[in-house]
Order: sequence, then C-alpha cells, then structure tokens
Amino acid sequence: MMIVMQEQATEEQIEEVTQSLAKLGFDVHRSTGALRTVLGAIGGNRTFDQRLVEVMDGVSEVHRITEPYKLASRTFKPERTVVQVGDLRIGGDEVIVMAGPCSAETEEQVGETAAAVKKAGASVLRGGAFKPRSSPYSFQGLGEDGLKMLRGAADDQQMKLVSEVMDISQIELVGKYSDILQVGARNMQNYTLLRELGRTKKPILLKRGISATIEEWLLSAEYILAGGNSDVILCERGIRTFETYTRNTMDISAIPVVHKLSHLPIVADPSHGIGIRDKVAPMARASLAAGADALIIEVHCNPDQAMSDGAQSLYPDQFDRLMGELRIIAPAIGRSICRESLHGKALLR
Amino acid sequence: MMIVMQEQATEEQIEEVTQSLAKLGFDVHRSTGALRTVLGAIGGNRTFDQRLVEVMDGVSEVHRITEPYKLASRTFKPERTVVQVGDLRIGGDEVIVMAGPCSAETEEQVGETAAAVKKAGASVLRGGAFKPRSSPYSFQGLGEDGLKMLRGAADDQQMKLVSEVMDISQIELVGKYSDILQVGARNMQNYTLLRELGRTKKPILLKRGISATIEEWLLSAEYILAGGNSDVILCERGIRTFETYTRNTMDISAIPVVHKLSHLPIVADPSHGIGIRDKVAPMARASLAAGADALIIEVHCNPDQAMSDGAQSLYPDQFDRLMGELRIIAPAIGRSICRESLHGKALLR
Amino acid sequence: MMIVMQEQATEEQIEEVTQSLAKLGFDVHRSTGALRTVLGAIGGNRTFDQRLVEVMDGVSEVHRITEPYKLASRTFKPERTVVQVGDLRIGGDEVIVMAGPCSAETEEQVGETAAAVKKAGASVLRGGAFKPRSSPYSFQGLGEDGLKMLRGAADDQQMKLVSEVMDISQIELVGKYSDILQVGARNMQNYTLLRELGRTKKPILLKRGISATIEEWLLSAEYILAGGNSDVILCERGIRTFETYTRNTMDISAIPVVHKLSHLPIVADPSHGIGIRDKVAPMARASLAAGADALIIEVHCNPDQAMSDGAQSLYPDQFDRLMGELRIIAPAIGRSICRESLHGKALLR
Amino acid sequence: MMIVMQEQATEEQIEEVTQSLAKLGFDVHRSTGALRTVLGAIGGNRTFDQRLVEVMDGVSEVHRITEPYKLASRTFKPERTVVQVGDLRIGGDEVIVMAGPCSAETEEQVGETAAAVKKAGASVLRGGAFKPRSSPYSFQGLGEDGLKMLRGAADDQQMKLVSEVMDISQIELVGKYSDILQVGARNMQNYTLLRELGRTKKPILLKRGISATIEEWLLSAEYILAGGNSDVILCERGIRTFETYTRNTMDISAIPVVHKLSHLPIVADPSHGIGIRDKVAPMARASLAAGADALIIEVHCNPDQAMSDGAQSLYPDQFDRLMGELRIIAPAIGRSICRESLHGKALLR
Repeated sequence: MMIVMQEQATEEQIEEVTQSLAKLGFDVHRSTGALRTVLGAIGGNRTFDQRLVEVMDGVSEVHRITEPYKLASRTFKPERTVVQVGDLRIGGDEVIVMAGPCSAETEEQVGETAAAVKKAGASVLRGGAFKPRSSPYSFQGLGEDGLKMLRGAADDQQMKLVSEVMDISQIELVGKYSDILQVGARNMQNYTLLRELGRTKKPILLKRGISATIEEWLLSAEYILAGGNSDVILCERGIRTFETYTRNTMDISAIPVVHKLSHLPIVADPSHGIGIRDKVAPMARASLAAGADALIIEVHCNPDQAMSDGAQSLYPDQFDRLMGELRIIAPAIGRSICRESLHGKALLR
Repeated sequence: MMIVMQEQATEEQIEEVTQSLAKLGFDVHRSTGALRTVLGAIGGNRTFDQRLVEVMDGVSEVHRITEPYKLASRTFKPERTVVQVGDLRIGGDEVIVMAGPCSAETEEQVGETAAAVKKAGASVLRGGAFKPRSSPYSFQGLGEDGLKMLRGAADDQQMKLVSEVMDISQIELVGKYSDILQVGARNMQNYTLLRELGRTKKPILLKRGISATIEEWLLSAEYILAGGNSDVILCERGIRTFETYTRNTMDISAIPVVHKLSHLPIVADPSHGIGIRDKVAPMARASLAAGADALIIEVHCNPDQAMSDGAQSLYPDQFDRLMGELRIIAPAIGRSICRESLHGKALLR
Repeated sequence: MMIVMQEQATEEQIEEVTQSLAKLGFDVHRSTGALRTVLGAIGGNRTFDQRLVEVMDGVSEVHRITEPYKLASRTFKPERTVVQVGDLRIGGDEVIVMAGPCSAETEEQVGETAAAVKKAGASVLRGGAFKPRSSPYSFQGLGEDGLKMLRGAADDQQMKLVSEVMDISQIELVGKYSDILQVGARNMQNYTLLRELGRTKKPILLKRGISATIEEWLLSAEYILAGGNSDVILCERGIRTFETYTRNTMDISAIPVVHKLSHLPIVADPSHGIGIRDKVAPMARASLAAGADALIIEVHCNPDQAMSDGAQSLYPDQFDRLMGELRIIAPAIGRSICRESLHGKALLR
Repeated sequence: MMIVMQEQATEEQIEEVTQSLAKLGFDVHRSTGALRTVLGAIGGNRTFDQRLVEVMDGVSEVHRITEPYKLASRTFKPERTVVQVGDLRIGGDEVIVMAGPCSAETEEQVGETAAAVKKAGASVLRGGAFKPRSSPYSFQGLGEDGLKMLRGAADDQQMKLVSEVMDISQIELVGKYSDILQVGARNMQNYTLLRELGRTKKPILLKRGISATIEEWLLSAEYILAGGNSDVILCERGIRTFETYTRNTMDISAIPVVHKLSHLPIVADPSHGIGIRDKVAPMARASLAAGADALIIEVHCNPDQAMSDGAQSLYPDQFDRLMGELRIIAPAIGRSICRESLHGKALLR
C-alpha cells in the first residue's frame, strides 16, 4: 500500500499514519520529496480496507500494491492450469467446443441437438435444467427431468455435460448428472454458493457478472480455489454497456487480460455475449482469434420454438459452418480445434 | 409489443409475422404507412421473448409496450404502500431513520452505537451478522452471536432491527432476531432467495444491484410480491459508474422515478451510496430533499476500529448534526422526520 | 509515481527502471520488502505517460501520486473561488439561480419567460442561440438574432445572461451579448475551444461531459485556467448510466466531491441532469441540499410549443413553487437563496 | 412513433394526443386492446422530440420506430460503400492495413517507421501532427512540420496518409498533406467540425466517441453525409467500461452491428481499443475475424522513446509477426489482406 500525503501534511500527521500502520503489522518505508511525502506500507493483511487510511488527517491518496486475490494469480502459479474433464483437457493445446440448447425441453429436442453439435465437432454438451430468469413469470426449467434428458443425450453422443447450479441446495442433484457445474453471471458474487462449490470435486465454470471487473471475477474464483477445488474455468459472457442494439457487449479483451493475470483457462460464450443469432458467429471467431481456450455456444435443433433464448441460438447448419471457420483461424494462435471433435472419435468418459 | 417492419418488407413477410403472433395468443393490429408497416400485438404472454420476433424476416425493430412487472407497478396499485413494522410506518407522512454499525462486533460496540443513534433520532437499528465480502479472506461476520447482540441492543433502545440474510439457509435464523430482512445488492437477482422470501411474513428491504436498471430491480421485487409477501421496501445504495473518486455513485434520481413507477416505499442508503465518510451527510440531505421515505445510515461509536466499512461510518456526533439538518429539509417535501425519533418516546414493539 | 515490481523481478530489472526514471528527471526512492520492491519516483513531468513504465520488464503496477491538474486543485488554492459577474457572486454565501428557455425562439417567448423567472427569483437568464444537436436535421438555433433577443430580455429584467458557444469562431459574437460563456457537455474536451476561452475575460460555465470522470472535467478546466482566465464555473448536468427511464443520471455526488478537490464553484443543472419535467424539482432540491453554489433550470412560458427540450422545461408556476421549496432547504446548508432574487431589487449590470 | 397509453387513460386523453400528433403532420393509427390503447404515428419529422408526447396526460410510453439517421442506413442504401483512396479500396474484398506512429516526432522516426510498416504489408501511413491531449501540459504535436514529415515518408513508401484534424481552422492545412482526414473520438460530436467536413472532398475517418452508442456514431456520420461527402469510414477504437486493467474496452461487436445497420466501411483500431502493447495483437486478430474492413495500428521504430502513446505502439517486428497471423485468418471471412500490401507492389497515388 502506498500512502501519498498531502503537500501541506505536518510531520505529526505523517508520524501518526506511520505508527498506525506499524501497529497493523505493516513495514513502513518513507520517501520524502520536495513537495510531498510518500509512505510505502508492505506486509499486513491482504484484505485491509485502505479507506481507513484515506480518512486519516494529512492523507491525500492511497493505492493498493498487491492484487487482492492470490491463488488465482499468475504470481502464485506461473504455469497455465489445464482442467481435466475425463479425457478432455481444457486449457491445453486443443481448443474445446461446448454446444447445446439453452434449456432442456424435451428428450427429442435434447437428443437431436446433441447429435447435431457432436457431428459438427463439439465435445461438451451444454444445457440448463434450472434457469435464472429476470421475471418470475418466465419458464424456470425442468429440474431433475431436464438433467436426465441431458445426461442421456451426452452419454449417447459420448460427450461431457455442463449444466448450471443456482443454489447450494441444487449442488448435489446437478453434480449427480453433470461433469462440469456452471455458476451463472447473476450468482458470481453469491459467496455462500461459491464457498460450497469449493468443497466439491467437480470442475466449475464460473461466468463473469454482467458488470464485474476482471479483479472481482478473479476474487470470486478465489472463493472456490480457497475451498480446495482448483478446477475453475472462467467464462466471459458479455458485459453491460450503453449499447442498446446488442443485448450485452462481449468483452473480447478479457481473454488476453485473464491470460496475463491468471493461470486459469477461459471460455468464451458468444451466444450470451451478443445475444442475437446473426452476430454469434463473428463473435465466436473473434474470441478464438483472441486466444480463448474454449467456446460455449447455444445451438437448438429448432430455435423458433425454443422455450428460452431461441433468438440467440444457432441452427445446426450455422454451427457446422462456424466450426469450419474456426478450424481456419486456430493455427493463427498456434492451436487446433480439439481433434476428438474433428474426427468424432469416441471419448471414454 | 410493436413490430416495425423494414421498408422493403414484403406482404408475405408481414403476413408470416402476423400469423405467428396470432398463434402465440396476441391480437394483432396493422398500421400501414407510406414507407413502413407497423404491427401492434396486444395480449399474449407478459414474459414473451421479443427477440424471437426480431429475428424474423422483414422485421426491423420490436418494442415492448407493457412493463414486465405487474404487482410492483403503479398501474396495478395506484396508492402508495405503507409497510408497517410494529408501530412504525415506512412510506407514510413521517420519514424513518435507520442507523447503526456495518457489522456487529462486540456487545459494547453494538450497545453504545444503538444508544447514540436512538438518542439522535433513529428508530430502526441496522447491523449485519452475515457479511457478503468480495474477498474470501475478509471478516465474514459473527453469525448468530452477532444477531443476539443486535436484538439485545434494539430491545434496550426500543428500536426495530434490520439485518441481512445472504442465503435461504439463513432465513429462519435471521428472521428469529430481526424485524426486517435485508437482501444485499449482490443478491438482488438470487431468485431462489427472493422466491423463498416471498413466503415469509417479514418485511423485506431489497437493495438495488450495483448495475441494475430500475426495471430489473422492480422485477426482483415482483418475485417477492408474487410469492405473497407484499411488504417490500426498495433501497437505493449507489450504482457503479466510471467515477473512481467515490466508491459508488448514489442515484438520487431513482427516488422520484421509483415513486412514479411503483407504489412501494424507497429507502436511501447514502453510506454505501458514496462510500466515504465526509460525503455521507450531503448525500443524506439530498436523498431526503428528493423525497426518500426513509434513510439508512452507517454509524459506529468508534469508526477507526471498525472491522468493516469504518471509512464510511459516521461518528455519533456527525450523525446527530445530520439529524438536525434533515429536520430543516423535511418540510420542503411536506413531511417530518418520524416524531418517535425526535421525542424518543417509547415504541411498543 | 509508485512503481511496484513483480515478486520475481531481478536486481537488474529494478536497476534498469531506476536508471530510466532518473534520466527522466525523477528522484527515485526504493523500498525493499520481503516479497516485493517498490520504487517511489518523485518530481519529473506532471504529464509523464506512466504506461511507459508499465511495459518495462519486471514491473507489475504503476500508480500516479499527484493529480494531473494543478491550477484547478485545492492543493494549489485552498480557499474557494468566487466568480464575480457584475454584482453577482457565484460561489459565495448566497445561492444563485439561473433560469430561462433552452433556445431563444421569439422575442415574446424570451421576454415572457425572462419576466416570469425574474419574478420568481432568478438572477441570471439562460438561453441558447447556437444549439448542438445530435441530428443534423434538428433545429440548430437562431444565431445572432437569438442573442439579441436574450440580451434584450436580460436587460429589461436587470438580469445577467449565460449562453453557449460551440466553436472558436463564435466566441467573439456570443461574448458581445452574453455575461457568461457556456461550454456544452459535448465540447468538454474540445481543447482548441478551451484554450481560446482561456484568453477571454468572460466567466466560463464548463459543463461536464456525459461520461467524463471528475478528474477529466478538472483537466478541462485546467486548459482554461492555464490560459489566464480564472473565472471558471463547473456545471454538473448528468452522466450516462444504464438507466433508460431517465435521459441522464444526475450525479449529485459530484457536488461535494468537486468541493473537496477544487476551489471552483459548481452549478447544478437538474433539467439536463434528469431530462423529464416532473423529476426536475426533486433533483433541484437534492442538488441544493448537497451544497450546490448555483442552479441552472430550463423554464419556458409555453413548454408544449418549445422548439427544443420542451419536455424538460418547467412551467413558470412550477418554477415559482420550486423556488419556495429551495428557500426552506438553503438554511440546512448554512446558505440563503440570493437576496436580489428574493426581493427582485435592481441589479446594476 | 408508437404511443402506449396508460391503462386508465380516458377517451378524451386519447383524442387529445391523436389531435396533437395529427397537427404535427403524423398519420395516426389506433389499436384498441383489452387493457390499453396504442397509437401508431407515422410520417412527421424524423427529429421530433418524443419526450413532448411522453409528458402528455394519459401517456405511458413512447417508442421511436425509425432510425434517426437516414443517409448512413442500410435501408437507404442496401449495398456496401467502398471508399476509394487513389487505387486503394476500403470496404472491398481486400482488407486494408494502416500503420504508423501516434505522432510525427522527427524525420528519421517517421521515415524509419513508414519503411518498416510498408515492408510488413501496410498500405496507409498513420500519424498525427495535431494531438488532442487531456492535459494542457502534454505534447501537443508538431503542426505543419509534422505533416510535411508524414507526407514525405508516405510518398517515399508509396503509401496513402491519414492524419487528424481537430478544428475547422485546421481542415485546409491537414487536407493539403493528408489523403484521409481523421476525426478523433473527443470530436465525434463537434458538429461545427463535422458539418464543415461534409463540404470537403476528402475521405473522412470518423472515430467513435468513448461512450457513444452506435446510433449516435451513425448520426455523426450523417452530419458529414448530409453535407455532400459520401466517403465516410467509421473507426471503432474502444469504449469506456468499468474495467481498469485496460485503458478502454474494444467493442468488437460494433463491427458486425455496423455492417448490419449501415453501408459504410468500418476500421478497427486495436491500439487505442486496448491501450497496452502486449494485447494489441490479440485484439487486431479478433477484429479481423469479426469482419473489419481495415485495421489501423500504432507502430513506432522505438516505442520506448515515443513522445505519445509509446506504451501501446508495436515494435516493427511485432507488427510483422501480426501481419502473418492476419493472413492466416482472412480466408475465414472470405477475404484477403490487400495484395499491394503483401507484395509491396507500387501504388500509384
């Protein structure tokens, strides 16, 4: 922590601040300049509320000098984390594609969509059974019935499954069927949930909150890591901006920034990131070109009849075309699209 | 819903959209202009995803024409709601002041602070026992011990108590001690929690999410109202903007806007709204002048030693001075500060 | 400037950064901690681009330690500036009210509105002759004819006049008629214009840009001050947020923040700040309660026929009622509404 | 325009609104539903201020149904515009790369940088002689001397030149040396400047304002188009968000959105879009993958000594490597990088 004193700060005020910090366990170093004195406080508590110093007499500004997260940082772990889901490696040389419907609706819909995305090259099936909806009157998902449909289709296609958990009361149930547990954007700071997920053994796909900074997102990951679960996959899914033409603004820059700050893999979700079908493919291509470790894309065998998010779901043939474009781009970042996906070779679960 | 067709839309496309909407239960009215055709779709489902129409051929734009919330709206209930907490009336002619520490820390701290704020004119004690913290390494609250301290101090001072509940697993416990249950900003869209609170009998103080629109906030209130609990108090506590000098930007305009759109009372929280002690009083005065039904303010008997939010907590004498200023302002909006508060007369709980 | 080195930074990297900074004229102080080294660089150039250090090997973070503005800061000038406009003092004990139409349209409209606002207590007439409009097809103002109408009405009512200048080519003309030159929000960073206004003798009312931080706003004031014109009045007029119900979000907190950081007076513009008539009065009251030095309010004798901004203009009787409310609030902040305004006593221009 | 009446609106109120709109030149169509009446108003003035209807009695909401811009829209001109700059075609099948230093500093710096970027494949040289800087104490550019250096280097390398114009007083001078005139983000709503540029014959590169919506950006383009200059190139250069780790957030989604709404070509500026060197390449690749018609990139022969923006300027070898990656990606969007650029064949100016 750096404490910049006011130009007119007195020697007594400087001494007072120094003593207070020393009592709190900081080593304090003093730099006296022509106009101002600056104190460097090193050590102390990572979660110290710097505003307590800001309100002291004679203090002009206070700056933090360490990231508030630790386990999630590159400083702590310089090499990239690869999250292993059965044979699949998320964060390795191959880019993984996850695809499927927003919600499980019927066995046919789930089965047909899963077959189509597998054929095109996806290796993880996505789909929700518990849906967080901004209106209490919207479709809220099929619950366990939905999970059964999804698991069945994933098994048929030899795919992995990712599905959302909204509350600690659902962890066990969703964990029974799903290979990866998803935390939605609205729950990114549901700390009770995050803490509990830190105690599970399943990989967690943690979506970024709609107006969260990258630091807050990594702090939420820290809750899971601190609980003992090191398999966290970050997911960029669009942030809120002033633009009204798109549903959200996909923050593509989060991809290289996360790779710089953290060792955790990052997945791009262009479907929620932009929210309207005809822009999903450009944003998916852009995400890959920026270095995403994986993509998660909404595909529906019949989007016009979808019970949720139909307007941002791709038709199977659009998804297939997109996969072809992704294969062209991958070498530009020294990677390939997961070969299992390309060749459709059986994955042992 | 209004569907604006493209200028070059064909008669077939217009017919196709009309038929689809009719099938979905809408009455469709057509306006044919010189350049464009506009369709008005009335009825149908309040939660219909309008993007499904946006992606149809020939469609240029779609606009919703009803608020997506119902029970929370002035259209549904034109007269203002008064939330009764024992003898206290929140939303009536008298403005209610809630005050107290961020967190319960010790019996002395809670007791001393409660006595001070009561003496200055507050009638509800605020204080947390479960704290949502962005870092897993920060102080997380005392739990039930904290609730006991708060209840004890509230009873000693004949005050009501408001305290936060973070998860459905805490509802029963917090409800045992607290008169009003608070939902924090980070949980504004924790729908599992909101739904469960709809089934309780306690008044709910619902904080606005840090980047939530007013519409989203009212939709979250709708979850509680739809569950059968009509005692919802909205709380403005600052939104995120680009300003870095303040912690949040208090959206004072939310006060008159909420009063226009909804019948629910609104409380202003200038402590979180601005986040730094010396600006709390100006923002409290501004909130009252804009028409707030109540204020909730952090006060600590010894802010420099506070375990959380000390930098935004008022000293007791600052709070006392502020109460005097508020009494000058209240008549400008045709109100008074709660007389119980002024005269310190016993409130029967 | 504080340079935080990475934990794994080598001694060579630290030395390299130190030497580079010394060459650039900084005094460098070193603090060596258990985990990290921190360098304090004092002196050097106020406008040095800190990113040049951020990209050096071994550097983790860089923090600026002085405000980038100087003449606008409280550090430079601790006592508050009072801008004198004839007999009027903006920033003194009395709060000044400026009112009038958005644009000058006809002699009758300007004259009637001026008479009404003067009678209610305003002492400065506002009105535009050059209008910045987001569409090239909107009404762009009457130019010099409008200025003549405004000057005439101000003289008739013994009021001062504030009017907008959009470009350096208009400075002389607008300055011929107007007592205060206004810079609109969209021109807050039109540096060519600001630099030229620094060379005039007229007071400048500088509106905050729609997404400007307070620091950027003070830097724009610095351009004017650095040119030799010390009569700058800042004007808060609403910022852009995610809220769609209001046109802008009035940042009331900017009022106490500006008073803390700068000696310059601040005017609140609730008409643009909220953008819809029935919320103007609450926001005007809130601005005063937060400590505004002056208010600027759109009033039109016939808002329904206004050529611009009619929907946010008050009717004369609404403005009169508002003035009464403001007189109740002013004592709460130890001020009064300008007595000339109250008593309508002649102001010598 | 769609006017949604309140549920409780009376027949008189509906009639009043209808009559008012008819007087204003609108054709009004009425849809009477079970709960609400909706009025469709077609025709009238494109720039009509809808808030005037919003404040009428009985009105609940008003929605605009036409874009406020016309000449910039796809509705007006369905086929894409190709801006011709000598032999170069911006918006055609080949993607154009513009590169060069932030500012002209010395003849050597400009010459060396131009040679390097030309060799790597750029066909337009970028560089500033008039610099808009947020601080009055920062380097403000070399003026005409800088323009001469830039023109000289462009001629030597047979490249085109793009340079910024900050004010109407600079148009003639900059136009004398530069092939394309750039309008900076801070001037996007400097309407006096835009109107004047509409009267020139030079292509205009119009940068998006830092918090402008896409609609506002297209309205600014409309000012230029309405003046008679149809050669407008839009430039996405990052928007302001809450993220502090990056300087701006590059809005990659603006690329497909602009292509949907407008016929004008769009250039991506990843250097300003992200603001820090090591993230420029990922954002450049992402922009191309999303469909950008051109890229504009800051390159400096010696970034560590640059007088402005050195930290976001690429080293020549980084730029060269990036060009290789772009050539891999281009076929994924059915395009190629401008062949002149690849083969270095002479361009006749």
